[in-house]
Amino acid sequence: MKPSRARSSSTVVADVGESGLIDLVKERFGAGPEGELWAGDDTAIIATGRRTLFTTDVIVEGVDFDLSYCTGFDVGWKSLAVNVSDVAAMGGVPRRAVVALSMAPETPMNEVTGLLDGLDACARAYAVGIVGGDVSGADRMSVSVALTGDVDTPVLRSGARPGDEICVTGTLGGAAAGLFALQRKLEGHNAAIDRLIARQLRPKPRLPESRRLLGASAMIDVSDGLALDLSRVMAASGTGCEVELGLLPVDPDLLALDGGTDPVALALGGGEDYELLCTIDPSDLDATVAALSGSLTGLTRIGVVTEGESCLFDGEPLEEEEMGWDHLRSR
Amino acid sequence: MKPSRARSSSTVVADVGESGLIDLVKERFGAGPEGELWAGDDTAIIATGRRTLFTTDVIVEGVDFDLSYCTGFDVGWKSLAVNVSDVAAMGGVPRRAVVALSMAPETPMNEVTGLLDGLDACARAYAVGIVGGDVSGADRMSVSVALTGDVDTPVLRSGARPGDEICVTGTLGGAAAGLFALQRKLEGHNAAIDRLIARQLRPKPRLPESRRLLGASAMIDVSDGLALDLSRVMAASGTGCEVELGLLPVDPDLLALDGGTDPVALALGGGEDYELLCTIDPSDLDATVAALSGSLTGLTRIGVVTEGESCLFDGEPLEEEEMGWDHLRSR
Repeated sequence: MKPSRARSSSTVVADVGESGLIDLVKERFGAGPEGELWAGDDTAIIATGRRTLFTTDVIVEGVDFDLSYCTGFDVGWKSLAVNVSDVAAMGGVPRRAVVALSMAPETPMNEVTGLLDGLDACARAYAVGIVGGDVSGADRMSVSVALTGDVDTPVLRSGARPGDEICVTGTLGGAAAGLFALQRKLEGHNAAIDRLIARQLRPKPRLPESRRLLGASAMIDVSDGLALDLSRVMAASGTGCEVELGLLPVDPDLLALDGGTDPVALALGGGEDYELLCTIDPSDLDATVAALSGSLTGLTRIGVVTEGESCLFDGEPLEEEEMGWDHLRSR
Repeated sequence: MKPSRARSSSTVVADVGESGLIDLVKERFGAGPEGELWAGDDTAIIATGRRTLFTTDVIVEGVDFDLSYCTGFDVGWKSLAVNVSDVAAMGGVPRRAVVALSMAPETPMNEVTGLLDGLDACARAYAVGIVGGDVSGADRMSVSVALTGDVDTPVLRSGARPGDEICVTGTLGGAAAGLFALQRKLEGHNAAIDRLIARQLRPKPRLPESRRLLGASAMIDVSDGLALDLSRVMAASGTGCEVELGLLPVDPDLLALDGGTDPVALALGGGEDYELLCTIDPSDLDATVAALSGSLTGLTRIGVVTEGESCLFDGEPLEEEEMGWDHLRSR
């Protein structure tokens, strides 16, 4: 056990057991509104419309997060936030989640309550109800969330057409730079670095922004890196693209790292920014950019959809190692 | 790496990577019926009624299964089957699942394809559509499934009333005895032992039976052991119970183990039988038993619901260690 974990708590998961942990979760997340039944039976009962979005994401200790540089709260927040981001990328509204937790019996209980706090905070921020779950023992912590959402007209990956403008919300590269900063223990050096770290640990799904992007022809969230996620939209749409690297909205806080990283490389391949990447009919571009200006994250045009299958960046295809994150590939 | 795994395949997960694995899953589970969109976008889109059941269960290598005595197929089957059992225990019909897989990059690909085969076989057996998922790296394999279901009138845990008869489908103790047999390498000794092992590795959710138990006042599936799961129904209903141990439908195949196990203890606390435990108004008992006779698993009366809070077995409360399985408690 790492010293930082041994120091942090005298009560561990094994002291309360599965049933104690389930009671804790039930108390936290409650019984649900009239007509629904949340935790406490074999399954939850949830109210649904005619069509429902349905997605899952799992995050694993040592792969997707490291408890030596993040808290239980961060893990709980991120486990739900990445699913909310997927629903936002469909043009939907997140509704109900189930959570499967795996953890070692010697996990300090304050890490677990922190995780529940983070889940709860993210659920409140995005009006999600956590309606059920499961717990199991394991060597390492992992959190698997499945989320439903309401949708009227889903925005798919497959709708991009040649001539559409390619746009992205907010800024890119910050989350990967935050990981770089965490690994080098730069936390607290200055406000810009702490903002980068927050991008990594507490991603903010672009749900309000997605409500203003329902006219997009295609949309995806940037989870594995702009280049890889863009290539997925193009493949689904049967189109290619030309991106101008000079137009990429690189996170200005990357300047705080004072070298040591390649900002454009992080913006292209870093991943985990959870911005929305979309394609927009040229006649809708000005109105959409205007709709996203002001208090929101803004929308930046970075390129254009083309005929054919090539994804070009300043006229060149990317090398495979510039593309983004594959969780399982040999390196 | 264990010799049995090294021998079994020359291709491992790292050779195909995350994107290769996702392609494999997409090909396997297809695009879905008209009006739905399965794998291939940020989330799935599924058709839903006004109320939807929603549940999740995670199974973890080394805790819930051991690849030294089971196959990838077994893991895939069980990961979905335990969720189908939860939907059956609500009186519902399972519909759509998402699957989050975590595994080490050095996992042999034939274990992965076996897992997908097992998922596929279980999905076909219970008419479930696997509509999406996620993959992540990890030290050990774990499979987290979230499942939706349709329901008209859910059968909750909270509906038992004093005087109701307590009944259970099929037989008890077989799955725990199968684990005992696997751990002692008794596979192939005789047909009875192989049936016990099948109870452990390929649980068959009692979905057809649950369709004939919609008149039950309360229902739960026996996943953590009869005693523990019964106590949950009684706690939810605010009732107690009296069970006659001589009435327990102990799996007759336990005789094949020829001593070494306590059949009643396995029936009470062994768990993983995935039978349905329900309470039935006495006036409905005969008709319900008749409805479940014949080609199905049958229904056995084991006791009665009482006023108060005590769960008594032949007049005595159980000790905590007789109750059943807590995944996280110190032992």
